[in-house]
Amino acid sequence: MFRIPRHIGIIPDGNRRWAKENGLQKEEGYAFGLEPGRKLLQTAKKFGVQELTYYGFTVDNCKRPKEQVKAFSRACIEAVKSAEQENVKIYVVGNTKSSCFPKELLPYTKHEDFENNCHAGNPKVSISQHAKEMRVNFLINYGWEWDMKNNWASKDIPRVDMVIRWGGMCRLSGFLPIQTVYSDFYIVKDLWPDFKEEQFEDALNWYQKQDITLGG
Amino acid sequence: MFRIPRHIGIIPDGNRRWAKENGLQKEEGYAFGLEPGRKLLQTAKKFGVQELTYYGFTVDNCKRPKEQVKAFSRACIEAVKSAEQENVKIYVVGNTKSSCFPKELLPYTKHEDFENNCHAGNPKVSISQHAKEMRVNFLINYGWEWDMKNNWASKDIPRVDMVIRWGGMCRLSGFLPIQTVYSDFYIVKDLWPDFKEEQFEDALNWYQKQDITLGG
Repeated sequence: MFRIPRHIGIIPDGNRRWAKENGLQKEEGYAFGLEPGRKLLQTAKKFGVQELTYYGFTVDNCKRPKEQVKAFSRACIEAVKSAEQENVKIYVVGNTKSSCFPKELLPYTKHEDFENNCHAGNPKVSISQHAKEMRVNFLINYGWEWDMKNNWASKDIPRVDMVIRWGGMCRLSGFLPIQTVYSDFYIVKDLWPDFKEEQFEDALNWYQKQDITLGG
Repeated sequence: MFRIPRHIGIIPDGNRRWAKENGLQKEEGYAFGLEPGRKLLQTAKKFGVQELTYYGFTVDNCKRPKEQVKAFSRACIEAVKSAEQENVKIYVVGNTKSSCFPKELLPYTKHEDFENNCHAGNPKVSISQHAKEMRVNFLINYGWEWDMKNNWASKDIPRVDMVIRWGGMCRLSGFLPIQTVYSDFYIVKDLWPDFKEEQFEDALNWYQKQDITLGG
């Protein structure tokens, strides 16, 4: 039986490196990450993945040069709007109180699905398999310290079964430290704007060979 | 310049698989992890690594068959005693209140080094480079939930720069979720009892190619 991870975390790294390699300014890379995000969502949906969480940007990222902050904020807003077209439930998590949080995304910061809430956040408990719609979460102006200091602010996001990271680095970079305690990490060497459906399929195939012990 | 990670986390996975592959009972594998642990410590010391944290066993591991629990508890006690011979500072972290915690290790559960304490636990801050002795931590009857629920019980252990995991899995399995938010993960396919110094050196060489952004 082909096991589909219920919830996949996506770290879409490498936009700036891609821009430089293609003779663009660093901040011009983010726009090229939009189409990959849309394609990945459609592919995940096709495979029956029930939940995706995209690493948008962090509180720390906002210390970068202004033109970069502007560019990735805009890309994230567009990513959320684009995901909305795909008939999925959207949830945005991050520090809404700082000026870095895009106001356009405030309407998405309420977690609506009570059914999914009962065991939400507990990495030991997988959620009932009969959720009707796919759920897509975005971490926007997120910070692991902010998350921890605010009584686990991200707790409506449940356990992540697999994290797929583009751009070759093998690290979490602060992505949902509690939800990922048991996650399997799959690293794609290519940069995020070079996303291909096959990379996602390779990740799913790799996932078949991982046992699930949840620390036992 | 060759960058030596200040603090390396070690996940010595694969003892049971190694035992099965070598025609032994699963629980017989742990004893074969002792010599690797000693050799790794000596190698790390030689390279100037200032701190090591070994993943001993977890609260969840204690739900395994009794002979396994007995075997890995004994191996962990011996590992700590063996490390002590190497003129390093030892610190043991875990839930001492449960019956699974080996009484023999209680004397090691106090964090003694005040100098190292000032920034301890804050993954953003690296500790002064002039600590006199190498520090070796062991997670014994540790649990990430226990850690979080007890006001971050492991907070005297500082940021982990690199995690090296033996046994081929690419996951943290609950290893210090806060200290590893920015860690680079290096995976050794071989099982822990098949430890070779070269694997450690390969990890250090790989680490040279990772940039350190701490989420920036």
